[in-house]
Amino acid sequence: MSNKETKSYNKKTFKKSFNKRYKYKRYTKKKKEVPVEAIRLIPLGGLNEIGKNMTVYECRGDMFIVDCGNTFPDSEMFGVDLVIPDFSYVKEHKDQIKGIVITHGHEDHIGSLPYLMKEINVPVYATLLTKGLIENKLSEHSLKNEVEINVIKPGDRIQLGCMTVVPIHVNHSIPDAVGLAIESPAGVVVTTGDFKIDYTPPQGETTDLSTFARYGSQGVLAFLSDSTNAERPGNSASEKTVGKSFAGLFEKAGNKRIIIATFASNIYRIQQILDLAVQHNRKVAVSGRSMMNNIAMAFELGYLKAPENVVIEPEKVKDYEPGQIVLITTGSQGEPMSALARMAGGTHRQFSIGPNDFIIISATPIPGNEKMVTKVVNGLLKQGADVIYESMYDVHVSGHACQEELKLMLNLVRPQYFIPVHGEYKHLKRHAMLAEGAGIPKENIVMANTGEVLRIDKNGITVEESITSGQVLVDGLGVGDVGSVVLRDRRHLSHDGIVIVVFTIDGYSDQLLSGPDIISRGFVYVKESEALISEARMAARAVIEKYEHYDYKDWTVIKGKIRDQVSNVLYKKTKRSPMVLPIVMEV
Amino acid sequence: MSNKETKSYNKKTFKKSFNKRYKYKRYTKKKKEVPVEAIRLIPLGGLNEIGKNMTVYECRGDMFIVDCGNTFPDSEMFGVDLVIPDFSYVKEHKDQIKGIVITHGHEDHIGSLPYLMKEINVPVYATLLTKGLIENKLSEHSLKNEVEINVIKPGDRIQLGCMTVVPIHVNHSIPDAVGLAIESPAGVVVTTGDFKIDYTPPQGETTDLSTFARYGSQGVLAFLSDSTNAERPGNSASEKTVGKSFAGLFEKAGNKRIIIATFASNIYRIQQILDLAVQHNRKVAVSGRSMMNNIAMAFELGYLKAPENVVIEPEKVKDYEPGQIVLITTGSQGEPMSALARMAGGTHRQFSIGPNDFIIISATPIPGNEKMVTKVVNGLLKQGADVIYESMYDVHVSGHACQEELKLMLNLVRPQYFIPVHGEYKHLKRHAMLAEGAGIPKENIVMANTGEVLRIDKNGITVEESITSGQVLVDGLGVGDVGSVVLRDRRHLSHDGIVIVVFTIDGYSDQLLSGPDIISRGFVYVKESEALISEARMAARAVIEKYEHYDYKDWTVIKGKIRDQVSNVLYKKTKRSPMVLPIVMEV
Repeated sequence: MSNKETKSYNKKTFKKSFNKRYKYKRYTKKKKEVPVEAIRLIPLGGLNEIGKNMTVYECRGDMFIVDCGNTFPDSEMFGVDLVIPDFSYVKEHKDQIKGIVITHGHEDHIGSLPYLMKEINVPVYATLLTKGLIENKLSEHSLKNEVEINVIKPGDRIQLGCMTVVPIHVNHSIPDAVGLAIESPAGVVVTTGDFKIDYTPPQGETTDLSTFARYGSQGVLAFLSDSTNAERPGNSASEKTVGKSFAGLFEKAGNKRIIIATFASNIYRIQQILDLAVQHNRKVAVSGRSMMNNIAMAFELGYLKAPENVVIEPEKVKDYEPGQIVLITTGSQGEPMSALARMAGGTHRQFSIGPNDFIIISATPIPGNEKMVTKVVNGLLKQGADVIYESMYDVHVSGHACQEELKLMLNLVRPQYFIPVHGEYKHLKRHAMLAEGAGIPKENIVMANTGEVLRIDKNGITVEESITSGQVLVDGLGVGDVGSVVLRDRRHLSHDGIVIVVFTIDGYSDQLLSGPDIISRGFVYVKESEALISEARMAARAVIEKYEHYDYKDWTVIKGKIRDQVSNVLYKKTKRSPMVLPIVMEV
Repeated sequence: MSNKETKSYNKKTFKKSFNKRYKYKRYTKKKKEVPVEAIRLIPLGGLNEIGKNMTVYECRGDMFIVDCGNTFPDSEMFGVDLVIPDFSYVKEHKDQIKGIVITHGHEDHIGSLPYLMKEINVPVYATLLTKGLIENKLSEHSLKNEVEINVIKPGDRIQLGCMTVVPIHVNHSIPDAVGLAIESPAGVVVTTGDFKIDYTPPQGETTDLSTFARYGSQGVLAFLSDSTNAERPGNSASEKTVGKSFAGLFEKAGNKRIIIATFASNIYRIQQILDLAVQHNRKVAVSGRSMMNNIAMAFELGYLKAPENVVIEPEKVKDYEPGQIVLITTGSQGEPMSALARMAGGTHRQFSIGPNDFIIISATPIPGNEKMVTKVVNGLLKQGADVIYESMYDVHVSGHACQEELKLMLNLVRPQYFIPVHGEYKHLKRHAMLAEGAGIPKENIVMANTGEVLRIDKNGITVEESITSGQVLVDGLGVGDVGSVVLRDRRHLSHDGIVIVVFTIDGYSDQLLSGPDIISRGFVYVKESEALISEARMAARAVIEKYEHYDYKDWTVIKGKIRDQVSNVLYKKTKRSPMVLPIVMEV
């Protein structure tokens, strides 16, 4: 299909279906006076990054939010626990917001909800499992009973002001994930959410391609699609291939204890493990807090099923032979405090590892976690265990669509405008190229940025303005109180430590009463560096003495000079630049 | 071949060749009195880690060293520039050390030489290119003329005390790499160094398999082999495949400027780029200090060849059309200060990137560098350039042997004892498993550790003792002065910053004269946290007041109490634990 054909086709069908659906009257006489309806999309995260997905939809002044995720701090964000979107825009328009629709229960889609709910309290719409995961999260913030969460399912019609949101079933690495069709007076916007196409899902149906196709044939104004795997050719593998690999590995494990580390939210995988455990007469124990919480909740809601007595308490594991046990645990990313990392380090309270263990790490390291995973693998191997990891067997599949799936979806939805989302710039760019190849005109593909307000109508897509957006850092209880100055100081301190120069002066006479003393932390091992420290002290004293006979002493200036002189001495001797902090005490 | 066959075969041939070679007399009458000659191997790095390779060989009291590399700090080693081996053992035995043999010029094999040469000054033996790279390194430490470097070539016999070292040509991602045969009174030890088997090397010969085979058939006591790629099945690809990919990409680039980032030491790759540039009438410019130094040196020594006027100064690039230029640059690992990273960030002094650039990142990210590389790719793409990276084309091949090559080498060398080296535990373990599969009895395979002294003779291999070893941290000019206390402080400071509580007392009366004042860095943005800071001040004051009427004041105790109280207040309010540092000034 050439570009031209697609374009004209899309425009035509779009107009037709649009007119039919919204009974948009054509005033044939005075064409120009008809206001063109527009929908505005305001991404507050998820573009040019993987994480903190959040988008505001606005039409005729009505607004709603899709997803509210968090991301994790990069290596330069010292001491930061969590990164959440900047909610300024949402707070400014809180009265216009009709609700929050969540596509699925992963952290990068629900992780910031507790912080948002402290700012605005509007109804949340989520599928059943997603609701369960959100409630677990809200409980940690003592917000569980403060928020109204409505259960939705594919095909429901959720009225949010002038817009209707229709969830569409998609496959992903967590059950109950949905894409969304947003029917607005300006036209239909479709978003896939996070998705893949699994023709042989272990549970449930394949991604609801026919509904995506139906919207496509009726006309879609704009389409937002998951770009995570836009760099990967071909199709993603079915979750069922993991089950098949596991089946072979259960045989291979023989009489050894099987330990499987995977993501706590991958209920499909956990169900496959349960099924195999039943087949092999093994009991299943669970280790790791998030894994325990999720599995309990999934059993309660009916997403996991197993005969009675299959799942046992971790304390009971010792009552069985190794060959009668499967242990499901957290820590597949090598997280240092996780159950698996503690087993690898020999510091787990309940489980010690040995040659009778057969361990499967059912995950691929997320970029940045490779070294942590390797450390865990080394630790487990050293204790004599068999360890299956990374590409040794098909013990993990991605939950995101690869190139062929993305092209199929583009072909079904045939949108007028395309906005690749959920990815770093390189992923979005590749997805845009795929879309161009699939027949969407280049000028109809928009590489958007977080904080840009996209105005979309049938005549075009434009960046209308930029609004306040970005990342807010959460450190302990503080939300947003760690800014660039604090981070810069932490970076500086981490690199070369701190050297404090403290002295006391007489408040009346400005004469030095004691000091200067030098105290350092994280700079050098002081006992072996006495000469260096005393040289720094002398440099500080020299500055103070120089100003001794001044009538008026500007201590800010003197402190600045001390900082310079001491820094110079230290740098010359060590080629290091600790933070130098002069303190004057006045009595 | 079964295990048994190999074992008996090896033992027989080993004895025969050993007796012939060293004219070892058999006292047939009193067999027991014959001392069994042994060779001792002391690895000081390179086991259970990738980096800082260094091994001491000892026989009859004579010693020599193979390689002296460095490694890079992990993410917990705040502010550390470089990690080198602990030289204690070498310093204790400096009089016994006859020389240092270097296998090739990569940092993990030569990077610690300047530090070692400050401790012991013995002759260094290296091939011509390796010598050039060592000299560049020694120059940076003003040691160039202090060290005797002897040029060696494959087949040479280097006499080091009672041992003779024979270099053997191997393929690697740098020219002039060698493995070593160490002929000792105890038998022959063979080490591959870093190697692969390239049947179609762009320059020079294939790894000298026949010499390895000859030693094998004569009998090898112990074999040390490169484990880096022991997890990868199959064979490594030839460096020539990179040249073929480049050829296609030069066509594809059309009239755009070509920029290629690669390792500064991969002379083969640089030569292939030069050849293609000549074919396509492009001039070659070089960016990045290490790239410039290495290329200049390689031209000087004859390792790189190009017609005159092909290589131009970077300043001249602007005088040509984009289609007439190839720019070779550093930064293939996304290193933040590298030339490519500066181009990606738009801060390069000479080169700005645009849609007329066709950029090839000819490397695979080393684990831990993925995020940095992605950042660079994103930056380049955003400026409109075409970027070829990672697995998009065959623009990089590994320099290390994969499983089939490792098995071939094991089969040729047929050692009595096998020691996998150059890898993390998981790599060594996999290599050990390959060796077992290749017929070496399990009990003859030793997974050694850095610092263990391996005693090897024809009757067995044992860990004789453990000696002082480990990592020494280099920070600026300081070697070893950053220890665990300093690192712990830096980690603490990086996480939550520092809160200083300072007050002045009267040295005679022990009465409070001024303060307590609170000064913080890297903790919170103070202007917005006045209430918190004043609460901390009150907590400190309360402690001081409590002790006000004590006759004898133990300020160490009081400072401890202040630290506890202030930490409590801050943690309760913020869930953060900054370093709290009380300072008492006495006047």
